[in-house]
Amino acid sequence: MANFDLMRRLALNEGGKIILLVMDGLGGLPRELDGPTELEAANTPNMDRLAREGSCGLSIPVARGIAPGSGPAHLGLFGYDPLVYDIGRGVLEAIGIGLEVESGDVAVRGNFCTIDENGIITDRRAGRIPTEEGEKRVELLKDIQIEGVDIQIKAGEGYRFAIVLRGDGLSDEVEDTDPQLPGLAPLPANASSPAGEKTARLVNQWLDAARERLRGHEPANMVTLRGFATDPNLPKYKDVYNLNAACVAVYPMYKGVSRLVGMNIIDTDPHDTIEDEFNKVAEIWNDYDFVFCHVKYTDSRGEDGDFDAKVKVIEDVDQHLPILLGLNPDVLIITGDHSTPATYRAHSWHPVPTLLWAPGTAMQDRVEAFGERDCIHGALGQFAAADLMQLALAHARRLQKYGA
Amino acid sequence: MANFDLMRRLALNEGGKIILLVMDGLGGLPRELDGPTELEAANTPNMDRLAREGSCGLSIPVARGIAPGSGPAHLGLFGYDPLVYDIGRGVLEAIGIGLEVESGDVAVRGNFCTIDENGIITDRRAGRIPTEEGEKRVELLKDIQIEGVDIQIKAGEGYRFAIVLRGDGLSDEVEDTDPQLPGLAPLPANASSPAGEKTARLVNQWLDAARERLRGHEPANMVTLRGFATDPNLPKYKDVYNLNAACVAVYPMYKGVSRLVGMNIIDTDPHDTIEDEFNKVAEIWNDYDFVFCHVKYTDSRGEDGDFDAKVKVIEDVDQHLPILLGLNPDVLIITGDHSTPATYRAHSWHPVPTLLWAPGTAMQDRVEAFGERDCIHGALGQFAAADLMQLALAHARRLQKYGA
Repeated sequence: MANFDLMRRLALNEGGKIILLVMDGLGGLPRELDGPTELEAANTPNMDRLAREGSCGLSIPVARGIAPGSGPAHLGLFGYDPLVYDIGRGVLEAIGIGLEVESGDVAVRGNFCTIDENGIITDRRAGRIPTEEGEKRVELLKDIQIEGVDIQIKAGEGYRFAIVLRGDGLSDEVEDTDPQLPGLAPLPANASSPAGEKTARLVNQWLDAARERLRGHEPANMVTLRGFATDPNLPKYKDVYNLNAACVAVYPMYKGVSRLVGMNIIDTDPHDTIEDEFNKVAEIWNDYDFVFCHVKYTDSRGEDGDFDAKVKVIEDVDQHLPILLGLNPDVLIITGDHSTPATYRAHSWHPVPTLLWAPGTAMQDRVEAFGERDCIHGALGQFAAADLMQLALAHARRLQKYGA
Repeated sequence: MANFDLMRRLALNEGGKIILLVMDGLGGLPRELDGPTELEAANTPNMDRLAREGSCGLSIPVARGIAPGSGPAHLGLFGYDPLVYDIGRGVLEAIGIGLEVESGDVAVRGNFCTIDENGIITDRRAGRIPTEEGEKRVELLKDIQIEGVDIQIKAGEGYRFAIVLRGDGLSDEVEDTDPQLPGLAPLPANASSPAGEKTARLVNQWLDAARERLRGHEPANMVTLRGFATDPNLPKYKDVYNLNAACVAVYPMYKGVSRLVGMNIIDTDPHDTIEDEFNKVAEIWNDYDFVFCHVKYTDSRGEDGDFDAKVKVIEDVDQHLPILLGLNPDVLIITGDHSTPATYRAHSWHPVPTLLWAPGTAMQDRVEAFGERDCIHGALGQFAAADLMQLALAHARRLQKYGA
């Protein structure tokens, strides 16, 4: 991964400007033997030109054979070994649905459940209520006030929600309240160490209030909490890379991880198109050294198993690339956080095609088009995703020499 | 190497079935400039087809430039970094000649030597007696009884043998009895720490008895012992990979290493042909998730320096591959544990051609034939042999995603 001590020593406060364009789940597989992958099938004249002029390679998100979730995969791209920097489940869930998690906060995942008149859980997922039903229950819980702590709550998908606690002396040393087995009552929040006692006490007050407010709202008439976690205190982009960095992403998860590494989060609308996103990059371009731009729909269409639709998303990105190229970035990296082959309908471990275009500093290799099999022969070879930021800084001439 | 903590978290108890076919010492070198290697010279239509359909690459057994012995090389293939998991020499020798080493056992290598009437060693290798002579001496030593310990002894090649001690409170903290220099008497077994004192005492009783029984049996009239070692307690395949694994191998060393990682050892005959071995894989196929099948003779012919004979062994494997393909494995990996170029007559460090065939999950690269120079351009790139098991599990869809 990025050597942060080295980066702190070598990273300059000036140099070229970098765009990191991530097409989520970019990597794919052929639909049939001897056929093209999604990226190879896509008509991408702009990316092909950049591939021809720059350096290509394949990045390994976490380790060989490991298919990552979006959180770890993005941490990797940002230079943080996802096996070292493990973001707690509560924090991932909270940032994934758009709650902000700051230093000192405690985040936790919640499930709505069904309890009977004796308080025994009869359904740990409240009959898998639809998201709208979860949102209604969250409205009931939103204004519970507990002295000494500010509580944010937000609905997730179906029976899920997340909570972020903000206040002095909070801790994630609190055990899950989900008893895991049916036929048991929800557990109270128990501290797993003395440091967690205050937090457990506050959470229990909240749980009591939640039980009152949900009474009669079957099937979701109670909650369980899991995965208490604190902000992971990741080294920040400005501190380690000397970069003023911004994030242009539509989905909360990616904004959340970007915020954890110290990027500024640019306002977006959930309905923003790829063109909209690129235009937002252009609007803020003068204010930043580094812009991370995230395209979600390559992954979504891959998970749908829709090969042709994934191809179209890639073509859509290519078509609008001139917006980014018009900014004259010194370094433009186009990659994915992991592979999501449409044939696979899921994240996979396959190394991710990566294109690093940097006029004057990137070695022009013999790759003639941007695709998985072309990238095998590229100048970047196969490399750990977490090394990418060092390469980005180097190609932007933002790193001093190491040693005399 | 395989990240065992991660594997324990992610490995499923279901998924595809895997065959790991190892041609010992597979990698080779051209006999002359511009000529083919052994594998390239071999007519291998089946492997070439699998290479065309699957992913190829080159595996690095231990580290760049390091030629491994068979023990470390196989540990690597099984996912255990051979520089971390160092199997003691006594254990390697013992399992190499077919003795079983279990948890708590102490194994040690023995040499027959010649001593004069004053007990001074005059030949540390007993005139390099042939194996039959060593076997006769072992017969004399077999039924020595020492209270409190069960002792297994077996002849190796020439003047070599191995012993396995089984009993309570044994330790490998015992120094070699070989004085290394001529003109000295064999040393008594000395404990190198208090933990080794009991073992040293028992070994000295055995050495006294051995001296008595070998008296007059010149030139092999005494023994020295070296490399006291205990079972290395390797993590087991079922525990770390969630695999029911079997080993089909003819030579004791490979059975031994496989047993140390928890594979079931399938009965074989020393005269089993490649076809016999493949048929044994077929017989047990229904009972296992993973079968390791070992072909010895590529290495043997390489060590003989017989290029053409090594080519023939490879062709023999290829010819019988339909037996394995008929089992419809989800993942078939064909590789070697290290290279043994015939021109070299020895193990070498050269990266080993590796073929991973897995319909639907392996990236089809542009490799058209299975050979060293083709594999350079394969989708697997150059990788640590100890990463191979993670790739095998991933391609068999036996690994969950890492993180959300």
